[in-house]
Amino acid sequence: MSEPMAPAPDRRPGGRTARIRAQVLDAVRAELAEGGHESLTIEGVATRAGVHRATVYRRWRDVGGLLVDVIDAAGETDWRPPDTGSLLGDLTALNREIQESLAVRPSLAVALMSASFHSEQAAQAQTRLWADRYAQCAVLVERAVERGELPSPHTDARALLIAATAPLYHRLLLLRAEPDPDQPERDARAAVLAAEAGAFTVL
Amino acid sequence: MSEPMAPAPDRRPGGRTARIRAQVLDAVRAELAEGGHESLTIEGVATRAGVHRATVYRRWRDVGGLLVDVIDAAGETDWRPPDTGSLLGDLTALNREIQESLAVRPSLAVALMSASFHSEQAAQAQTRLWADRYAQCAVLVERAVERGELPSPHTDARALLIAATAPLYHRLLLLRAEPDPDQPERDARAAVLAAEAGAFTVL
Repeated sequence: MSEPMAPAPDRRPGGRTARIRAQVLDAVRAELAEGGHESLTIEGVATRAGVHRATVYRRWRDVGGLLVDVIDAAGETDWRPPDTGSLLGDLTALNREIQESLAVRPSLAVALMSASFHSEQAAQAQTRLWADRYAQCAVLVERAVERGELPSPHTDARALLIAATAPLYHRLLLLRAEPDPDQPERDARAAVLAAEAGAFTVL
Repeated sequence: MSEPMAPAPDRRPGGRTARIRAQVLDAVRAELAEGGHESLTIEGVATRAGVHRATVYRRWRDVGGLLVDVIDAAGETDWRPPDTGSLLGDLTALNREIQESLAVRPSLAVALMSASFHSEQAAQAQTRLWADRYAQCAVLVERAVERGELPSPHTDARALLIAATAPLYHRLLLLRAEPDPDQPERDARAAVLAAEAGAFTVL
């Protein structure tokens, strides 16, 4: 007698469904990094993944569906915010990760942001991912409050995180500046100084 | 006898050439705002502008040429940085302008940034425009130094301006947050507090 609560064989984690998803999403990432979202097609992804086109159409429907799933998959990884022992150290480490993801060529992060300007579905998935990441990083600010590094326990974590990270996105994505190895720490330091002066304190 | 140094009649400012350029660029802005750069075509622009297609092809060659010229034209307007009497006031006014340009629907600014992810020519024009704007705004920091508002005359004006303005772009473009009327001043204040604490002092 089969176990009624057992998942269907091809649905269990690591099973055929998961394997096909991994192959397809790897192919999407590779196609995006090489040619951006404009050259992304179901056919190209299926060929690269070695999966039947019909399978891709059935499960992801269209290019928007593929973009959403690759962004959702980024949110499923067990990424953890840095924990270096100080707010400045944590924000610097976070900024280094961001700079690396934006400066690598080709950059999947840049391709996904670019895609989100053109696909409403991708934009919504990207917005959900950002919200998750900011929520995860709130712990950086909580730990800084516990260590007495901030003037008030009522510090707006999201505002502080945006102040620390936004200048890097601005420089690398919009101003298209060359990455500067010292910039992650400089931007982190400016945000910490503002926070120490009460810029993100909420009453 | 004709004057040898006089410009050709249809090249003088306000002449036929200038008038056609104004009509064509108005049409580009309207098309961009309505449908984004993806739906921009020479034909659509010529029709909307009431200008022969051949004229548009001859002068701007392709959609990239139209994008570059519309961005260049933005740099030719006699925009002046705010002058309110304080650094906080100036940065707040600047941020309010930015928020307005990004939050208006449809937004030409957003359409141009989106286009610059897809056209190398447009990206270079956009980068030149940013560089001009930052250079123009350096006077905000110079005036703050003269008024004794900053701890050191050696303040990196560009870094301060990026710290003040980047969070707004981040919230509105990447996080797709709703515009908050208090945010321009909050972001300006955080940058001023960081500047007062020496975050942008260069040795």
